[in-house]
Order: sequence, then C-alpha cells, then structure tokens
Amino acid sequence: MKKTFWLITLLTSLLMAGSTLTVNAQTYPPKHTPELEFALQRKVTLGEAFSIDNTQHGRRTVIPITGGTFEGPGLKGTIINGGADYQLANDKGRTELEAIYCIKTDDGVYIHVRNRGIIANGKDASGKPKFYFKAAPQFEAPAESKYGWLNDALFVCEPEWTQEFKGIVLNVWRVK
Amino acid sequence: MKKTFWLITLLTSLLMAGSTLTVNAQTYPPKHTPELEFALQRKVTLGEAFSIDNTQHGRRTVIPITGGTFEGPGLKGTIINGGADYQLANDKGRTELEAIYCIKTDDGVYIHVRNRGIIANGKDASGKPKFYFKAAPQFEAPAESKYGWLNDALFVCEPEWTQEFKGIVLNVWRVK
Amino acid sequence: MKKTFWLITLLTSLLMAGSTLTVNAQTYPPKHTPELEFALQRKVTLGEAFSIDNTQHGRRTVIPITGGTFEGPGLKGTIINGGADYQLANDKGRTELEAIYCIKTDDGVYIHVRNRGIIANGKDASGKPKFYFKAAPQFEAPAESKYGWLNDALFVCEPEWTQEFKGIVLNVWRVK
Amino acid sequence: MKKTFWLITLLTSLLMAGSTLTVNAQTYPPKHTPELEFALQRKVTLGEAFSIDNTQHGRRTVIPITGGTFEGPGLKGTIINGGADYQLANDKGRTELEAIYCIKTDDGVYIHVRNRGIIANGKDASGKPKFYFKAAPQFEAPAESKYGWLNDALFVCEPEWTQEFKGIVLNVWRVK
Repeated sequence: MKKTFWLITLLTSLLMAGSTLTVNAQTYPPKHTPELEFALQRKVTLGEAFSIDNTQHGRRTVIPITGGTFEGPGLKGTIINGGADYQLANDKGRTELEAIYCIKTDDGVYIHVRNRGIIANGKDASGKPKFYFKAAPQFEAPAESKYGWLNDALFVCEPEWTQEFKGIVLNVWRVK
Repeated sequence: MKKTFWLITLLTSLLMAGSTLTVNAQTYPPKHTPELEFALQRKVTLGEAFSIDNTQHGRRTVIPITGGTFEGPGLKGTIINGGADYQLANDKGRTELEAIYCIKTDDGVYIHVRNRGIIANGKDASGKPKFYFKAAPQFEAPAESKYGWLNDALFVCEPEWTQEFKGIVLNVWRVK
Repeated sequence: MKKTFWLITLLTSLLMAGSTLTVNAQTYPPKHTPELEFALQRKVTLGEAFSIDNTQHGRRTVIPITGGTFEGPGLKGTIINGGADYQLANDKGRTELEAIYCIKTDDGVYIHVRNRGIIANGKDASGKPKFYFKAAPQFEAPAESKYGWLNDALFVCEPEWTQEFKGIVLNVWRVK
Repeated sequence: MKKTFWLITLLTSLLMAGSTLTVNAQTYPPKHTPELEFALQRKVTLGEAFSIDNTQHGRRTVIPITGGTFEGPGLKGTIINGGADYQLANDKGRTELEAIYCIKTDDGVYIHVRNRGIIANGKDASGKPKFYFKAAPQFEAPAESKYGWLNDALFVCEPEWTQEFKGIVLNVWRVK
C-alpha cells in the first residue's frame, strides 16, 4: 500500500508512454471534440422475448440472442447462439438494455461482449419527438491477440433500420 | 408476464413517439455516424490518493473527490465534497476508473454521477505510443426537472490538461 | 430534493412498520446470529463451456445453462434454456461466477435470477485445503405475485454433489 | 481459448486442492445448512444525508460515511472518512443500499469494501410486520496479507441497534 498523488502518477505514465501532451491555457468551451471511428457492424438474430412485469426494478424483458454476423475493418465473424439482451423498463417508457453474449472471429477467437445502453423516447431541441437508442459495448478479447485493442477503448453503438435483414443491425464506433 | 416480439414493441413505441424512421436498403459500411455534442465541463479537485496493491481484482486506488465546479449550456454549479474515483489497475498498466460523486446546480438541484472508463497506454495506427483516457458518465437527475435530459442519453468524456487549474478538467459530450 | 437525517428516516420507517426493535446496551461480540432458512433447490443442466484466456479481467469462461428444475417450500418449476454462467478466473485460481438466467414456476410465472459468487481453493483454520463455492442469488419476480418475497431478501447458495443428477445441484437459503 | 467441460475442470480443481467431497445419493431436501461465523463488527459514523427524488432509478439517497471503528477475531482498525452509502428506494418503500468505503487495520493495511443489500418492510410467516435489513459486503484486501481470506468468502451483515453509539453498528458473518 503506497500513498501517491494521482496526478503525478498519471503524468509519469504519460511520460513513460512517450505521449505528447497538449496543455491548454484556456479550457472553456473545449476546442477539441473526440472523433468516432467506425469499428464494426453486428447483425444480430433474436429469439422470442418474454417479460416479467412489475419487478422491484421495473419490467424485465429477456430477448434471446440466437446468432448473426459481425464485420469491420480487420475483424469478421459470427455471433454465438446463447446470449440475451436483459432489458429493464421503468413506468415512463425508459428502457435500459444490457446485452450479454459472445462473438467468434473467422480465425477462431472468442470475444465476450456486454452492451449497456438506453432506449428512450425524448424530444429534440425543437420539441419534436425523438427516438433515442444508444449503447456502449465493452469487449473482452485475449489481450495478446490481434483483437486486444477492443479491450482498451470506449465504444458507442446505435441501431440501423433495414428491410434487408430480419433482426437488429447495430453499428459500433470507437471513441478516438 | 406477456410474450411479445421485441421488434414489434420497439416499432410500436417508435410510432407512438411520432418519430421518423429511416430504413436503409444497404447497411455496410454505415452511412451515418453519431455526433458528439458538448454537454458540460467539470473541474474536479482531488484529495490525496491511496492504493491497495494486489487485491483479487488488481491494484485498487482511491482518489477522493473534494470539490470543484461544472459548466455547460444550460447548467452550472459545484461538485460536492465526499465522492471518490475508485480505480482498478491490472498488472499491464491498464486502469478502469469508476468515479462516484454528486454535483449541485446553482438552482439547488442535486445530480448523482457514476463515471466509468478506461485509462490505457496504447498505440495508434502508426505504432506511436498513445495515452488513452475516456469515460462514460451516467447521470441521475430528478426526471421532471430541467436536468431530466441527463438521465436519457449516453455521454462520453475525456480529460483536458491545463496549467490554469490544480485538479482534473473533464469535458463531457452527449452522443446525439 | 430533501435533506434528512438518515437514521431518523430509518427509525420512522421502523415505527410505521410496527416492528419491535431490540436496542442493546452492549454490542460486542454480537449475541444474535442470523439464521439460514432453506428456500429452494435448483438442478441445473449445463452445455459445453468455452473460455477466453487472458482478457483484461482474467480468464472468462461461459457455461451455457440449458435447463433443469427447481423446488422449495411453496415454489416449483423449470429452468429456462438460454442463460449462462459467466465466470471470471484470476491467475491464482480464484473464480467469480455470475450466472444469469430465468426460471418459470409451474403456475406460469417467470422469475429472473442473477447469481454472483466465489469459487476458491482456500484453507480452513487448521491449514487443511478447503474448496469454497458460495454465491448470493438475486431474484426478480413480479412484486405482487405470490413469489414477491423473493425480491425482498438476501439469499446464499452452495452446490451439492450427487451421482443421481448430471449437472449441478444448488441449494439456496434465505437469510432470515 | 480452450473448450472444456466445466464440471471436469471443477472436479480437477477439487482434487488438486486435496478436498474431501461428500457425494450424496439423495439431495432433496438438503441435509446440510451453511453456518455463519462471526467475522467483524463495524461501528460507522454517518454525515448528513441528502436525496435526489424521482430519478430514472427511484429515489437516490447519499449518506456520507465519516469514520468509525471495526473489530473482529484477528482484525481491528478504523473506518476511513470519505465513503458513502448510495441508497436507491423505489416507490414501494423498498431500498437497495450500496455502501462504498475503505477501512484501515491497526497494522496499517487498507481494505476496500462494497456492501450491497436490501432494506424492506416485509411480513413474517404469521403476517406480522417485519423490518428486514441485510447486506452482503465484499472486501478487497492485499491477497498476500493476513487479511487475504476476506477476498475469498461470501459475507452477510445486519445492523444492531444500540443506545451506546451514535451511528450504525453492523455485524458481519462469513458464510462457512
């Protein structure tokens, strides 16, 4: 157990990493906005859902994840049958989703996924009704594999609607 | 308990919300990328950190959150003394942060914050060392207040480095 | 938003509930130990497991939950195919389990289960090797149903080894 | 990534540990009930609480943990100022508590604690109102320290009411 000043630790790890750090004199409003870089698209097939109404946490809906495919720059494969999206809806129509499942790359690597997010009917700035569905998938890949970069970044995803595919299409971006 | 097809439920809720839904014939690669909209900046003051080495989950570091301010379009206030960032580092230098604290707007509304994220020393596409620090704050505000929109969206944040402020400056964007 | 003294709130809720509260003059060591009351036994059938070695969190093993039965005083039914136990093992052989699945009572009520626990090879007081496998299941039942009491208590469980059943037998007790 | 039958892995780890395993021919009802072994008592002092009503998850109440002491067979020390209990109450009066804080033994070892539980006004078998307050603390101690056993077991706790101490007294038992 050591006592340390965290910022010193942080700056040391920055220097060790040889990173260039931009230090700003003025901070508000921020001049830099993070970019979103397309990472992968998942096409997920779903089984028949069932719900448990009025639990202590709201309405719990279980949507089986039965299969599908994924594809992105440098990765491609299938979605393993056997996961599920465990959604929780409160009585205002707001839903929290938590999809838990695994994918398998076409070179045989398994990757675990937990995708937590929000489905809400909100309004935009002009007061117009707006459907909102965003989630933040977290990946667990073998750290030393070519997919290890999935472990070390934040991701966001949103659905895409298509007539071409019976299921749900989710596009995932890496926060750069 | 009712059995329902989830996509039908979803589409019904879309129609009830009066949302316009764009359905695409072709999906890969995606044509649309979500935008990040600046939401707020937090300037957080930190107390003296301490660490517990070699727990069953890695090295646990506790960084007290002692105060500070926040500001964004339509919201402004102070950070409540008494929270903390509970970080967990594995033996590869990868850290997961979980900052848990509350803020108070200048019109007297308390908002609870859980900010989970990743601090990692990675490499960019060209192999150059790159420091990565991103997190996804979740807010709990009174749903009927003017800050209720914070409950119903996904956010991402990253630090900004400044000489002006002794603490950590975090900029937060809403995923639009 | 209201400021309250929590203990006053707690004592008020006690009085509202008409509970009799024993207040002790001396507290250490405690004179009362909670009792464990048998709640149910689950017999779970398992599919073929697969593991992802060396993720950022350790070794992730996914063990499909394919079915089974449960029985206890006042409840009886089947385990729904489609859940899984998502285990995480560190390099010392310590495992955290998180089984996520649903059960269905013989009168048609679905109940969601999250069972988190520990599998560890430890030692007892005399230094003899001792296998330890305990978990704490959390239930989500319809609050107004006859199974609503499952939502409002803490439970512990441990496995039982039998030649009679090919799968895992877990006994669950309510902390009284 | 390896495919394994989980039960085989489990049995192998049992044999490696040299454990004696009792295999029963008949399993229902279980003949063995786990015992609860007193582990420690915590006397926690609390600051002034504040609540955020009507969030998306219910009413959030923050109760600062300002200090205190703990004592049990083989361990003794103080509770670190700066933690909090983050409680969530639904509109039925059911509360989930999540106390997050650290303790320090009198020989200088820090231990992190997350204590999740339930406060509910239920009824006992005879229909009499009954206050229920139980939680399951999880500890993170240095694995190689004399407190490492806290990492590798399940614990349950309940409050004890005393006039002697202004705060909350919690007794903790190890599930044996």
